[in-house]
Amino acid sequence: METDSRSPIGIFDSGVGGLTVYRALHDRLPNERFIYLGDTARVPYGTKSLATVERYAIENSQFLASRGIKMLVVACNTASALALPKIREKIGIDVVGVIGPGGRKAVDLTRGRDPAKIGVIATEATISSNAYVEAIRRASNSAEVFQSACPLFVPLAEEGWTDEPETRSIAARYLAGIKEFSPDALVLGCTHYPILRDVIQQTVGEGVMLVDSGEATADEVARILSDRGLADLDARPGRRALCDDLDHFYVTDAAERFARVAERFLGTQPSKLEAIELTGRRLTLLGQVT
Amino acid sequence: METDSRSPIGIFDSGVGGLTVYRALHDRLPNERFIYLGDTARVPYGTKSLATVERYAIENSQFLASRGIKMLVVACNTASALALPKIREKIGIDVVGVIGPGGRKAVDLTRGRDPAKIGVIATEATISSNAYVEAIRRASNSAEVFQSACPLFVPLAEEGWTDEPETRSIAARYLAGIKEFSPDALVLGCTHYPILRDVIQQTVGEGVMLVDSGEATADEVARILSDRGLADLDARPGRRALCDDLDHFYVTDAAERFARVAERFLGTQPSKLEAIELTGRRLTLLGQVT
Repeated sequence: METDSRSPIGIFDSGVGGLTVYRALHDRLPNERFIYLGDTARVPYGTKSLATVERYAIENSQFLASRGIKMLVVACNTASALALPKIREKIGIDVVGVIGPGGRKAVDLTRGRDPAKIGVIATEATISSNAYVEAIRRASNSAEVFQSACPLFVPLAEEGWTDEPETRSIAARYLAGIKEFSPDALVLGCTHYPILRDVIQQTVGEGVMLVDSGEATADEVARILSDRGLADLDARPGRRALCDDLDHFYVTDAAERFARVAERFLGTQPSKLEAIELTGRRLTLLGQVT
Repeated sequence: METDSRSPIGIFDSGVGGLTVYRALHDRLPNERFIYLGDTARVPYGTKSLATVERYAIENSQFLASRGIKMLVVACNTASALALPKIREKIGIDVVGVIGPGGRKAVDLTRGRDPAKIGVIATEATISSNAYVEAIRRASNSAEVFQSACPLFVPLAEEGWTDEPETRSIAARYLAGIKEFSPDALVLGCTHYPILRDVIQQTVGEGVMLVDSGEATADEVARILSDRGLADLDARPGRRALCDDLDHFYVTDAAERFARVAERFLGTQPSKLEAIELTGRRLTLLGQVT
């Protein structure tokens, strides 16, 4: 499909977590329009195998490509860790994952420290993939990396427990190893974790720089759009609201639950939200929430 | 497919939680063999729509029926709540869900109390379906029912946090309404909850009778097998171990993770565990863990 600078940017995630990446992109690129796909029928990806994650990621990417996007952001850490090469093989536009930008940003922020000490927290799948460690290694030979899985952070974020004493206590337990390592920077390597940013910051201490992979990704997307002459330069009147009707949201199931968690994550709900069925490239409209 | 009393009993769940139902069946029916299917590629069902849960449940049931089972146990509460009628329409053997038996057992245990007070805890999807409330109503006109969703119990059980202070604190928070209602019996309406049985019992008080829907289901399966003359009466030498090689386990993805959580839930791992792909009735062997 023909695309140009006026075309939207595609974002997919396994579910609702990628909304933090959408917010970062929206804040960084107020002129752009977005199409977001949350694969809520098959969430979570973090406990699934390489072959399955690749297949799902390609189906999501092909769907978004068929909607005429000028660029694809893979907001899901698991899919970014496992499926970027296959996605790039299948679709002919720029593809940006969240892991490379997150890792590079951590290295940039800690330049001059010798050795730089970088912590990474993420889901079990992302940690086992070693994808952040490799991304950091590609940007720095000398950085020391320590990583830790925090499986309960995702359900705590979806439950909206951002300031409960149990959340603080669980954070203290999960982050004990990280604190002992005493990193200069800590990568929030899961799209849900920015929702718990305050608790995480207070637990590891104010001296640790938190790296939001979504924000790092937004910076990288802005740079690529500008390099390629693909930035949308037609200024829109005023600052656009999150989730206004220029952005289009699709989910593969359970749209009401997505809208509810979106409210928790963004303080607002998508104006345009549709439930679709992805079977190969076929698109079936299951329902619409407005 | 021809089946007789020597045929195995089929069990399916959306993932690993149904292993508590497998354990209850194994304990109650030591002579029977089981085929367990965990749909780990599509777990969880609790956040998905009716149409999607029905489709997945039918695919799982048809797979197990094709393996020559004499009876089907739907261990998944969500599938039991939403998909039993469609499953029964599609396969020609007895089908037992976990909700009817759990609800009836709670009514039986509280007979004589006037009014009987029954609490139900489950996932958000099961609570919203009202399936337990309806099952209890069918068995008793007078029982008072109070139900409460406990979303973090599933990840806490899978994390193996059965005795952590955070688990106690979260249980106290989730079960505050139940405690105030002061039930005679409390239904554990999610397959994961028996893993947290001790914490739940201590939180609501020793006077509350806990109803494990898996155990109630095992009693009902025993009764139906006996009524139909389908019980396997050939005594096997000695008591069989859980997960021995007479029981066959299938998952649709991520067999290693399933084996790891099985170890946490049952203290042992399946001797025979295969990963398969369910596409309609086609069966592709993805791998084997031994």
